[in-house]
Amino acid sequence: MKTDDRPGILDRIEHVAIAVDDVDSAVAWYTSTFRCTVAYKDATWALLAFGNLNLALVIPEQHPPHIAFASPGAEKFGTLTTHRDGTRSTYVKDPAGNSVEIMATD
Amino acid sequence: MKTDDRPGILDRIEHVAIAVDDVDSAVAWYTSTFRCTVAYKDATWALLAFGNLNLALVIPEQHPPHIAFASPGAEKFGTLTTHRDGTRSTYVKDPAGNSVEIMATD
Repeated sequence: MKTDDRPGILDRIEHVAIAVDDVDSAVAWYTSTFRCTVAYKDATWALLAFGNLNLALVIPEQHPPHIAFASPGAEKFGTLTTHRDGTRSTYVKDPAGNSVEIMATD
Repeated sequence: MKTDDRPGILDRIEHVAIAVDDVDSAVAWYTSTFRCTVAYKDATWALLAFGNLNLALVIPEQHPPHIAFASPGAEKFGTLTTHRDGTRSTYVKDPAGNSVEIMATD
């Protein structure tokens, strides 16, 4: 079953942020290797849009690598911070210590 | 624009594999925290299905953390290995050293 065809009962992953040491060279590599578009870029991080997901490339000293999930129960996990783009989220750790962002769906 | 609505011209991310130290406790946490289903699980890794993406939880000593992209040009990046589920892929590194799996789309 293609992921696009799954019923809406499953939560969505909104973005994944991975560590890079140089944003420009990482953006150049990903945009020349894959069909994706640059949604945002500065010296500390960039956001690439793929067909089903946004991929963030982050300098880890300034932005922690993490995975962001959209959850209708986001408020249960902590006080939500409102970001400049209007989204609201909080951060938790999974049992292995990975950073997990939980974003409200409304 | 919701990611589901994007035109098919953008490549898709097929799965993301992140490191965990214990598969059982990670699966228990993710399945109780989010609406996702367990597509596969053994002692060394598990595959969780989310609405738009598969998330693999891997013991890094046995399976390297990576991001897998579906690309119609996968063959350009190396000899493709055929896996048990019929998919074909090769692994490369991005400029920061992150492991990237490139999967054929056919």
